[in-house]
Amino acid sequence: MKDPECIFCKLANGDIPTNALYEDDDFKVIFDAGPVTVGHALIIPKEHYANIYEIPEELIGKAYKLAKKMAIVLTDVFGADGFNLLQNNNECAGQSVFHFHIHLIPRYKDQEVIFGWKPGEQDTEKLEAALVKIKEALK
Amino acid sequence: MKDPECIFCKLANGDIPTNALYEDDDFKVIFDAGPVTVGHALIIPKEHYANIYEIPEELIGKAYKLAKKMAIVLTDVFGADGFNLLQNNNECAGQSVFHFHIHLIPRYKDQEVIFGWKPGEQDTEKLEAALVKIKEALK
Repeated sequence: MKDPECIFCKLANGDIPTNALYEDDDFKVIFDAGPVTVGHALIIPKEHYANIYEIPEELIGKAYKLAKKMAIVLTDVFGADGFNLLQNNNECAGQSVFHFHIHLIPRYKDQEVIFGWKPGEQDTEKLEAALVKIKEALK
Repeated sequence: MKDPECIFCKLANGDIPTNALYEDDDFKVIFDAGPVTVGHALIIPKEHYANIYEIPEELIGKAYKLAKKMAIVLTDVFGADGFNLLQNNNECAGQSVFHFHIHLIPRYKDQEVIFGWKPGEQDTEKLEAALVKIKEALK
């Protein structure tokens, strides 16, 4: 399924020309237009799925096998010192194009941290209650 | 393979008792000890692989199929409004335990943004040169 209004559908399927890093039957990999680091790229499925809730299990497995391959190659080519894989779902989580995609982010030792990270405290009581429901849902 | 010094090996394999959200032959899922949001959890493989460069392709595929399942359940149980999957490799990318793991981060509309995100400009010349090498490496 494609969404005629979706820019990632157009990019992944060639309706908007792009210089892809990689392409197969399922995915296109392109550089991010507003990179947070040098070499920041995106894995975009050719089919339209808004987010992780919609993408089929089989396809997300394939996407991340490809992510591993791309991480190795991008690290090597750009001489990166580390790597983040980030995948955002819904606006409150930083998603801005509502077509599932994986951010491939090479990281460099001399570059300031781009991900803020504020460890909190566990609310043990809340988590205990949730645990019961989670186990039930996963049965 | 296990690393006798690795805390995630001990947690994933029961040498340190933990109240797991989920467990199968390959993975254990536990709540993060310093959660950035309510319900923040980790997928930890039972075998020791330091990072994305080391983990086998087949296992990373399985890990993210599980991540999709967990995202659906955690979103539902905690009433989250969105979700991040984050996977960090090496210290400069924010990794602090050097045993591959995936952060499962439920997100909420009323919660401040935890991931800073500073879009940059593409260095077209650099990327063009890299593209040739990337395509060669992926052949």
